[in-house]
Amino acid sequence: MASQLRGNLVVGQSGGPTAVINHSLVAVIQEAAKHEAIEGVYGMVHGVGGLLRENLIDLRRERQETIQGLLSTPASALGSCRYKVTPQDYERILQIFRAHNVRYFVYIGGNDSMDTAHRVAQLADDRRYELRVMGVPKTMDNDLALTDHCPGYGSAARFIALATMDTGKDLEAMRTFDDVNILETLGRNAGWLAASAFLAKRSAEDAPHLVYVPERTFHEDEFLEDVRETHRELGYVFVAVSQAIRDEQHRTVGTDLSSVAEDAFGHKTMSQSSGTANYLRRIVSEKLGLHARVLRPSLIARDFTSCVSRPDQKEAYLTGRSAVSHAVQGNSGYMVTLVREPGPTYGCTTGLAPLQDVANTDKLLPQEYINERGNGITEAFREYALPLLGDPLPRYVRLERFAVPKKLE
Amino acid sequence: MASQLRGNLVVGQSGGPTAVINHSLVAVIQEAAKHEAIEGVYGMVHGVGGLLRENLIDLRRERQETIQGLLSTPASALGSCRYKVTPQDYERILQIFRAHNVRYFVYIGGNDSMDTAHRVAQLADDRRYELRVMGVPKTMDNDLALTDHCPGYGSAARFIALATMDTGKDLEAMRTFDDVNILETLGRNAGWLAASAFLAKRSAEDAPHLVYVPERTFHEDEFLEDVRETHRELGYVFVAVSQAIRDEQHRTVGTDLSSVAEDAFGHKTMSQSSGTANYLRRIVSEKLGLHARVLRPSLIARDFTSCVSRPDQKEAYLTGRSAVSHAVQGNSGYMVTLVREPGPTYGCTTGLAPLQDVANTDKLLPQEYINERGNGITEAFREYALPLLGDPLPRYVRLERFAVPKKLE
Repeated sequence: MASQLRGNLVVGQSGGPTAVINHSLVAVIQEAAKHEAIEGVYGMVHGVGGLLRENLIDLRRERQETIQGLLSTPASALGSCRYKVTPQDYERILQIFRAHNVRYFVYIGGNDSMDTAHRVAQLADDRRYELRVMGVPKTMDNDLALTDHCPGYGSAARFIALATMDTGKDLEAMRTFDDVNILETLGRNAGWLAASAFLAKRSAEDAPHLVYVPERTFHEDEFLEDVRETHRELGYVFVAVSQAIRDEQHRTVGTDLSSVAEDAFGHKTMSQSSGTANYLRRIVSEKLGLHARVLRPSLIARDFTSCVSRPDQKEAYLTGRSAVSHAVQGNSGYMVTLVREPGPTYGCTTGLAPLQDVANTDKLLPQEYINERGNGITEAFREYALPLLGDPLPRYVRLERFAVPKKLE
Repeated sequence: MASQLRGNLVVGQSGGPTAVINHSLVAVIQEAAKHEAIEGVYGMVHGVGGLLRENLIDLRRERQETIQGLLSTPASALGSCRYKVTPQDYERILQIFRAHNVRYFVYIGGNDSMDTAHRVAQLADDRRYELRVMGVPKTMDNDLALTDHCPGYGSAARFIALATMDTGKDLEAMRTFDDVNILETLGRNAGWLAASAFLAKRSAEDAPHLVYVPERTFHEDEFLEDVRETHRELGYVFVAVSQAIRDEQHRTVGTDLSSVAEDAFGHKTMSQSSGTANYLRRIVSEKLGLHARVLRPSLIARDFTSCVSRPDQKEAYLTGRSAVSHAVQGNSGYMVTLVREPGPTYGCTTGLAPLQDVANTDKLLPQEYINERGNGITEAFREYALPLLGDPLPRYVRLERFAVPKKLE
């Protein structure tokens, strides 16, 4: 039987928020309450950045209505951060943990956060301070290794698929005026979110007709050829594109490099540019003479709660709960993973992956999810991703349009 | 009793689609079926543009499942157009109507469409061809005169309010990294849609903090002052802005005029520029050193059906049905209007307004809905607009954040 390690638990949220990240937080709070080994339940305000200023809050003093309300509140209720922890900072973290008798540390975040958690665990181990560290996956980018998928992705993907379906119908209706819609999604290195637009498509006429992801080199001449060809066939073209696709010289397409900001991890933040889709709109107009519109929902996709994925909510909770119960059982240095159950009905259980194996790696779209020409997504992706969106996507209709015989020439 | 005018009915959809415009179409089809004076029910494919090519379809031959399915299908199922009708075209329309014994013409659209309908009615009258012409209001811009509001607006406003609430929470969570979110909405001359972002706000901390609409001259210096001041107070700033605000010289802010396209009515289409919000993002960065993100959902707001306003759906149906029943009763040359019932509970009946009084006029936001400085919206607007969004907006929570006493200095 595992040792009963008594002490306080600290939980933090890090990186970009999602529509369901608070489900993981609520799970941590509620699961912690079940174990008498866990005394105080503290939240870091704005992640490790706040922790380093000893900015902790007592989550057990929050009202029950507030905790319940978090289940329908998007984004990170504790506040988030993008702070690159320095070696001195790790010493300070350990000092703070000792001072507050923190014995459980649960960090909800992406791969940078898993790296932070891993280093905290290592240092505690080096200094023989007994600490149980667990990571809870969170990212709408879906780019964490060793988990089937990431909480936050299903809801964002659902929004992108729905937005594609709806604005695809708009384009069909407006085809005598608009030629091309270009939907740009977030996603720095991985094309998971742009690929989710493909889930909107059930027939050749349906949007999207072309999808471009960072996993493939973008060839401008092929893109223009594809748009022209699709327009000739259908009379309209719906394009979904990741915010950061790269050309043959590895330059991000359409990004004015002089205005790109970097976050603390050295990741380029594309928010500073007018973006890939605006660039594509310009070349479509200048080189093909087609009228294009840009749709750039940006953060709306990751936060929109009014059409959230129910399995995503459930799994965000599940991973948070599992992190606490595994820690109480004596585990440390792991991220909770989602493991898809075999069989015809979708379901997930949880597993564990060493934090160091998840830290700082990006899980990209596998090549079998991208078509040969690199301008579309395959049915294998649909099989993987569709269950993550929850309730079936709506079915839209098209009039059959029985022509009335003409009476005039 | 009105004369029994027997003949066929033609219905068309024009201008930008909405999430509920097909409700008006279904209402026209279903109401027409109740009157034996109406024989065939024909749809114009892509509005008057299609009509001029005698491109009519027989809506009575569509399957019942398809007609029912239209109630959950966004955008204009008949296809839309933006075509400016010429004097010769009107003669041709009348010729086509005569050839097909069209005696009822229902046009679902905005003020350009009401102008087209008005001129058709006038010409028929001049030529003593008995024709009953009715307009059905449709625009998410909410800028039609003489109606309390327009079908299509409530759903678009609901989307913008929800997106503001959700990305407002994102900004609060990310305040240690992001300083400013700038949400750009559609809306050429009227600020109704940008104003709807204000409905997200229930407390000073809630987004949006600043709202800019085309009804007020935009002063860049005041904008920068407002952003700096709000950032100093709260640590983050959420800005909602119409796509076409104008400066002291009546220039559209941030629009590269060399790349602006015009539609058939001479309206500038902003889709050709990288837009107002991108410009504001740039000056916020360059002049205040703040990190800003641009949210530009564009068409998603007008088409998104997954969180549609129920009264909006109902009223789109109501206006379509009313148009047909009024026409059968002998009325012609009117647009159906929505008339708000007095009393504490929201409800609307329908009325009639002469097409010529609606044609080519824009109903702007009244001054009492805009605050004195022109950087925000008033409670009087909330009273007007909130019922149009249907179900109550969600209630989000904030942690009370009871500080854990610090143990280190």
